[in-house]
Amino acid sequence: MNKAKLNQIITSIESADKLAFRDAMTYIDNLTKPIGSLGYMELMASKIASIKGFMPKELKNKKIIIMCSDNGVVEENISSCPEKTTALVTENFTKEITGVKVLSNYYGSELTVVDVGVNHDFNNPKIINKKIGYGTKNMMKGRAMSIDETLKAIEIGMEIVEDLKDKNVDIIGTGEMGICNTATSAAVFCALTDSNVDKIVGKGGGVTELQYENKKRVIKKAIEINDPNKEDVIDVLSKVGGYDIAALCGCFLAAARYKIPIVIDGFISSVAALCAYRLNPFCKDYMFPSHLSAEPGASYIMQELGLSPILNLNMRLGEGSACPIAFSIIEASLYTMNNMGTFEAANLDKKNYVDIR
Amino acid sequence: MNKAKLNQIITSIESADKLAFRDAMTYIDNLTKPIGSLGYMELMASKIASIKGFMPKELKNKKIIIMCSDNGVVEENISSCPEKTTALVTENFTKEITGVKVLSNYYGSELTVVDVGVNHDFNNPKIINKKIGYGTKNMMKGRAMSIDETLKAIEIGMEIVEDLKDKNVDIIGTGEMGICNTATSAAVFCALTDSNVDKIVGKGGGVTELQYENKKRVIKKAIEINDPNKEDVIDVLSKVGGYDIAALCGCFLAAARYKIPIVIDGFISSVAALCAYRLNPFCKDYMFPSHLSAEPGASYIMQELGLSPILNLNMRLGEGSACPIAFSIIEASLYTMNNMGTFEAANLDKKNYVDIR
Repeated sequence: MNKAKLNQIITSIESADKLAFRDAMTYIDNLTKPIGSLGYMELMASKIASIKGFMPKELKNKKIIIMCSDNGVVEENISSCPEKTTALVTENFTKEITGVKVLSNYYGSELTVVDVGVNHDFNNPKIINKKIGYGTKNMMKGRAMSIDETLKAIEIGMEIVEDLKDKNVDIIGTGEMGICNTATSAAVFCALTDSNVDKIVGKGGGVTELQYENKKRVIKKAIEINDPNKEDVIDVLSKVGGYDIAALCGCFLAAARYKIPIVIDGFISSVAALCAYRLNPFCKDYMFPSHLSAEPGASYIMQELGLSPILNLNMRLGEGSACPIAFSIIEASLYTMNNMGTFEAANLDKKNYVDIR
Repeated sequence: MNKAKLNQIITSIESADKLAFRDAMTYIDNLTKPIGSLGYMELMASKIASIKGFMPKELKNKKIIIMCSDNGVVEENISSCPEKTTALVTENFTKEITGVKVLSNYYGSELTVVDVGVNHDFNNPKIINKKIGYGTKNMMKGRAMSIDETLKAIEIGMEIVEDLKDKNVDIIGTGEMGICNTATSAAVFCALTDSNVDKIVGKGGGVTELQYENKKRVIKKAIEINDPNKEDVIDVLSKVGGYDIAALCGCFLAAARYKIPIVIDGFISSVAALCAYRLNPFCKDYMFPSHLSAEPGASYIMQELGLSPILNLNMRLGEGSACPIAFSIIEASLYTMNNMGTFEAANLDKKNYVDIR
């Protein structure tokens, strides 16, 4: 995919159906409860309606895409875990032991595990091989990816979503695995928003104080030497991002293009969502936040996207682990609006209810 | 029940098992994830362990108690809905149309509907008749309930929980229905915490600006003329509370007494939880918050209880409507901790993970 093709796709993205949203809200306002009293549950059901054109009864086919890749900046010793952890955990996603897999089992969703650039050759049919390289280059020493690699990663994200669309997916979740990807996503975030690295960079999965100071220094240096153009998302991604973030950005773009609801997980997923939103603001019409990541900077992104996370679980695992929970609450919102009685069925007079929204 | 008997019960309440909590956390810290990265999911599973003495695999028997009653203060025109709404909605809980019932169906929990003082005689075997009176007295003109009625309401809450315990309930949710009960609960809250009525009182299910101003005036007046003793929860409840709040307070006390996890719903339920906590702080060891109510004052209570709501849904329906969602997430936390693999199973070295909690 070249830049012209990407721009063509980006321009083709439309806003969700505002009329379907309004129709759903009108329907919901006639259900037996004080008007607006189910808060975000009402808004989520109506948002699904605005994406699908009607309010479905359920979300049968729920998939979490996990983009896995390594980052060259790992050589700067800014993570407590060795690089091989990426490969090990990627392999583990196909077993029944990781957080996101167990939560998916509980809530009835499934994983789509993608190797978009792990520094390891897998021999596992459950891992989709879309490897661009064996990890990116060290962003402290120059551009992490070429523009072509960045476009390739975005294209891979789009292809994965397209494939799930062909298999009738109802909702998509976004997860990732990659040692040092809280560093790359913090770098992308700071570059896109001109934020202060010291205020934004968190401790990711867990680092010592020394590694933490080093992590912030490395991110500052990476931004300084690469000097990414904040108005150019592709430039920022290629200089201080990673295959995983770019691929997830592609997922958000494709979800909007094909009108599929897509759930944001933690900080890395939020940064990818921000990239897609900056490329075309209509993308946010298809996005559903899940939890507020414990990582600093997450709340800034939610504010720019105008989204309110529905879960407050103080989680910082990544993997897409909050997506199964969010799927369930979104589906519960649809079930509720489809099955509650009307004021008439409840023998109540709607005229008595004051709309205080 | 007299005051001596109540005090005896209150004094008998014990803290949850701190050792079982620590054992659960030690177990969880060996699961394949950055230490502490599943945040409140880990704490909820461990809290259940501290209540039950071990970490169960599931919560089979999930019940939401809905305390229904009327409030004499309704004659002051501070609600947009007529008093008969209480009876109509109470009846509707036994049909398949209300928010809490539909959400309960989705998540597999059940309702226990209790008439603790609705101004209506029901002829419905699905409504448990524990009627103390046909609504309380108008708190603007004097005490809402006698001390005996207040103790009776608390006792009813305890009896309902005791009955569910005998039927092997695994977790309890707390809901309510009663026109004007956001006014009574705001009055109880302000009396207990010396809070400014203008800052605390919200619009409940929905009132006009005129009714809102009136509501605040009425609450101020009720506190002024009754002059409740903030150190005496029973005095406060009897003067400016209601049957529903007192009965829910009884539920929280009994849940702690019998070591049963109990979920807080919205503002009214939170005020009842605060009452129980003030009677014996150990009660909070058994409480699980669900969502942060849209009603002002809710966050103050969470702070005093030291609890963080796990849901952010901007809901203000009451009924116990957030309890089914919270049940599901608490159960998911147990499922996750019971089914995730250990570091060993994941071929990962725990030594690489830094504990940043």
